[in-house]
Amino acid sequence: MQDESEVAVLRYGHRPGRDDRMTTHVGLTARALGADRVIFPDNASQSEETVEDITGRFGGPFTVERTTELDGTISGWQGTVVHLTMYGERIQDVEAAVRAAHRDQPLLVVVGGEKVPFEVYEAADWNVGVTNQPHSEVAGLAVFLDRLFEGQELTQEWTDADRRVLPQDCGKQVVDPDKVSAGEHPSGRGGEGDASESSK
Amino acid sequence: MQDESEVAVLRYGHRPGRDDRMTTHVGLTARALGADRVIFPDNASQSEETVEDITGRFGGPFTVERTTELDGTISGWQGTVVHLTMYGERIQDVEAAVRAAHRDQPLLVVVGGEKVPFEVYEAADWNVGVTNQPHSEVAGLAVFLDRLFEGQELTQEWTDADRRVLPQDCGKQVVDPDKVSAGEHPSGRGGEGDASESSK
Repeated sequence: MQDESEVAVLRYGHRPGRDDRMTTHVGLTARALGADRVIFPDNASQSEETVEDITGRFGGPFTVERTTELDGTISGWQGTVVHLTMYGERIQDVEAAVRAAHRDQPLLVVVGGEKVPFEVYEAADWNVGVTNQPHSEVAGLAVFLDRLFEGQELTQEWTDADRRVLPQDCGKQVVDPDKVSAGEHPSGRGGEGDASESSK
Repeated sequence: MQDESEVAVLRYGHRPGRDDRMTTHVGLTARALGADRVIFPDNASQSEETVEDITGRFGGPFTVERTTELDGTISGWQGTVVHLTMYGERIQDVEAAVRAAHRDQPLLVVVGGEKVPFEVYEAADWNVGVTNQPHSEVAGLAVFLDRLFEGQELTQEWTDADRRVLPQDCGKQVVDPDKVSAGEHPSGRGGEGDASESSK
């Protein structure tokens, strides 16, 4: 987030078609929950496009990149590397240390896709498990970021957005940030921008 | 979780094929992060099978069900209903009230899939947004459950498991809970049970 050391998320591995939606959700979750940047494998162009589209509409700052050098991104990282894996140390045991490291230097969060080689475990400063149960790399990333930022990511400001959702107890309200207000009823433009429909 | 009011997660909507993986991840995230039960739409049999398989191997208690009555499940719920949506009230503003309600009565968490009708917004006691940004229903569920249980879900006990992952700073160790120990090197049975490979 702004005024802090950078947090980048690296999606390690991607199978076009099969992984498009998961990789897109990794990118959107990284953006929504406070990371500054997501780095996708070179073959994830469709996910890149979707995340860039959302950033264009809902604001930034947030950057999407693709790389042919997954391992090089890790080995060349100037800062701390965390690898999220169900085999790792318990997040509740290491989160304070990770947070302290992030105060001083940039953090790279590696999120596995297809099989992650042992070299990634060795290269990481921390292998971290959000539970030691099998669930979802998207869920693991979300809990990790919420704990890393201690909830501060929930109130971050977005710039250059062409729409903003105003919290409602019932219904949907989307406004143009440059105008005072523009109400919207869910039976009107319902569904647009809904989390479940924002990705491919 | 045990010794608490029930928490059930209802996946509202499912498109076979297209949504299999997301629906499975909703179920696995519900299980790993402290819910007692997931209810899938009737057409999500493949996701049901995967979540049951994981529960059989990694333990319970956790129940998977399917229903033809998504709306009936909500309207007939004896307790509190939370609907997760990017249009809802900010989680940081309502989580304490939701937690207080859950102390007294069962909680149903509705997670949208395809377009969610306005009736669901009306039927919910709370419409809750984990940010008002588009990201992932799996990420939203994960952060919601972690905050609902205030991290206690990370230390829950699993029963009737035939394997348990022991947290490691580098590598993978999976043991038979009934035996003292059984080490495993990642270069051996690497990948089995990895979060990214546990679902279809």
